[in-house]
Amino acid sequence: MGNFKAILLICDGMGDRPVPELDGRTPLEVANDVNMSNLALGGECGIMDPIAPGVRAGSDTSHLAILGYDPFVCYTGRGPFEAAGIGMDVRQGDVAFRCNFTTVDSNMVIADRRAGRIEEGTAELAAAVNGMQIEDVTCYFKESVAHRGALVLRGPGLGAAVTDTDPHEVGAKVHDARACCPDDAASAKTARIVNQFVRKSYELLKDHPVNKKRIAEGKNPANIILPRGAGVAPNVQKFQEKYSLKGAAVVETGLIAGIAVYLGMDVIEIPGATGGLDSDVMAMGKGILNALADHDFVLCNVKGCDIAGHDGDANAKLAMIENIDKMIGLLMEEAGDNTYIVLTADHSTPVSIKDHSGDPVPIVFWGPDVRVDCVQEFDERAATRGGLLRIRGTDIMNILTQLMNTQEKFGA
Amino acid sequence: MGNFKAILLICDGMGDRPVPELDGRTPLEVANDVNMSNLALGGECGIMDPIAPGVRAGSDTSHLAILGYDPFVCYTGRGPFEAAGIGMDVRQGDVAFRCNFTTVDSNMVIADRRAGRIEEGTAELAAAVNGMQIEDVTCYFKESVAHRGALVLRGPGLGAAVTDTDPHEVGAKVHDARACCPDDAASAKTARIVNQFVRKSYELLKDHPVNKKRIAEGKNPANIILPRGAGVAPNVQKFQEKYSLKGAAVVETGLIAGIAVYLGMDVIEIPGATGGLDSDVMAMGKGILNALADHDFVLCNVKGCDIAGHDGDANAKLAMIENIDKMIGLLMEEAGDNTYIVLTADHSTPVSIKDHSGDPVPIVFWGPDVRVDCVQEFDERAATRGGLLRIRGTDIMNILTQLMNTQEKFGA
Repeated sequence: MGNFKAILLICDGMGDRPVPELDGRTPLEVANDVNMSNLALGGECGIMDPIAPGVRAGSDTSHLAILGYDPFVCYTGRGPFEAAGIGMDVRQGDVAFRCNFTTVDSNMVIADRRAGRIEEGTAELAAAVNGMQIEDVTCYFKESVAHRGALVLRGPGLGAAVTDTDPHEVGAKVHDARACCPDDAASAKTARIVNQFVRKSYELLKDHPVNKKRIAEGKNPANIILPRGAGVAPNVQKFQEKYSLKGAAVVETGLIAGIAVYLGMDVIEIPGATGGLDSDVMAMGKGILNALADHDFVLCNVKGCDIAGHDGDANAKLAMIENIDKMIGLLMEEAGDNTYIVLTADHSTPVSIKDHSGDPVPIVFWGPDVRVDCVQEFDERAATRGGLLRIRGTDIMNILTQLMNTQEKFGA
Repeated sequence: MGNFKAILLICDGMGDRPVPELDGRTPLEVANDVNMSNLALGGECGIMDPIAPGVRAGSDTSHLAILGYDPFVCYTGRGPFEAAGIGMDVRQGDVAFRCNFTTVDSNMVIADRRAGRIEEGTAELAAAVNGMQIEDVTCYFKESVAHRGALVLRGPGLGAAVTDTDPHEVGAKVHDARACCPDDAASAKTARIVNQFVRKSYELLKDHPVNKKRIAEGKNPANIILPRGAGVAPNVQKFQEKYSLKGAAVVETGLIAGIAVYLGMDVIEIPGATGGLDSDVMAMGKGILNALADHDFVLCNVKGCDIAGHDGDANAKLAMIENIDKMIGLLMEEAGDNTYIVLTADHSTPVSIKDHSGDPVPIVFWGPDVRVDCVQEFDERAATRGGLLRIRGTDIMNILTQLMNTQEKFGA
């Protein structure tokens, strides 16, 4: 086994397409990113399909793949990862949901899917519903940031193939959850419990002091909780067991933190890492360096480029790339000679389409002994001329662990 | 969902190897094909393995893969696609065969596998055997072009793992079909039915007026029908259901039409599209443009390059490429700004080997927002320097639908 360490830096949604307002170049092609260029110059580049060529990846499925876990096997829906990401215990047999605090009228018609993007008082509202017992099932609920939360159902004989209660539309009535398949008794039970949970949440929350205060202030009350994205706890091998590497995660979103929690990685809290365009990226870099002191592997996800992509804001994406570039400069300087840096994205979020696309992303492996190629810039098109050619998300940990010399040989 | 349309133009067998009589260049490298070059210049290129690197693809397996259907799962033999391609109904549980009208002597020895390449009277011959009842099985038979036809067996408990009756050799005796595996009772039943069908076809056809006339004219009689290529109806998701795109097919051969029929695409008949070297390719181009008016996606297969390849005729291949190039000019001019054009081949048919090879083929994606690369010519070797690098047939629809913005995201 080797004595190497590694940083896997995933810039969420950084890949893009040619942008007319940037003269047909991508933000990565335009950005002033000398440190990324230095990684390319001293590393081996390529393009990477998180799932497979052309497949539009979510951040969750992509991170699973990049960490070496086949999402077609491991991905059980968003609920369990959201719940784990906010510190909830999700066990085998549980069914977990992501939830919104929502505003409904007395006819259960949606007035505001995000309850006025409520920021304060959600812990008190959560406490009012958490621990609810319905039949032989316990309902654990916890608030996340803003109007978000997660629900974990624990009890015998629950299934996860149920429809959402959130109609995703203002003016529509709250949906009854139902089993996707009529003869799936376990999921039918889950649907029955969820529907009761939703009704009871309305009864418990509609006159809650937090909501009375909101109404008095002219704000939409968070008077119901709508679960969606049901999934069972994924049954995955822990990261350390799989790779013999002690892993940490410096990440900004609950979703990615949830994946890290499932894999048994230490999630490091970074004050100032907001997940927004204002995030203190340099603080994350320092957090990575601190984590390296007692970990072999640090996963970092910086969310900002994805936000800029969803907003269709090329300049914000450029600025975020340049922020990350400064952080990379710090890592290259401070991480030490025995540390690999892998820089990539989990998917493209082109500013032209304001959503994830299936375009591949550039990737570079930088560190001792890599087969340095002729690529001198880190961007979508330069990387196509790199030595790695075209790889997939699930290839990354194999490439990295063989460089780190921690991978078992397959065969003799 | 987007508002894009797409043309997927597959030049059958267009890929080739260096040809000595072309100074070691391929027909695509030599051809005067300015429109293909313009696609390369304004698009993103690569090379494409229809199935996997080095695998010799048939046109049927390749088209399935290119349309996003894994042929290792979906391909159930050529029979069902041939039958569907000539408008026969092939249902779940049926077993379908492609057939030849053949000439045998009274000892069932093959005199002419193609019955003098019979052109006329096959509808009458087909009518004589169609609808035959054997045990509890109905035998549907329909003529195709020339000596070809298809047989569909419909009845309970049929299997498709049976050997061919056609010995593929003049002077050999007609083979008895038999189950590939001795304890496969369903396929044994099919073999028994097929063998009776073959014998009865001889009894019904040997003195048929069409054949009496042929004999009087000194032609070989079509006095027996020999089924081969047994397969069950493939169970595939319809194209529109899979992609939310309304699809049409402008194709020349029954085999490819059969695939389109199975996938629920509208097959557009083009007068003058002969499937030969004399085909009116420009009429196919106009047919594509017409089809685009009320479809989102048009598949086009032009057969000629494959014919030239099988004939070992480099000049005929060159001429066909240049014909297709003119048609592409029309498409680029008329298809509209919101239309993607994907140009590729289903396999290589090198003139040096006169059959399909496993060499990859060039591919280009042309249309809004693609990551234009530095490739300026469309041919086998120039395309290796393209931004797509090396993709597979089953990647194509994923890449295209994410460009068209009609693909669901995998994950969140």
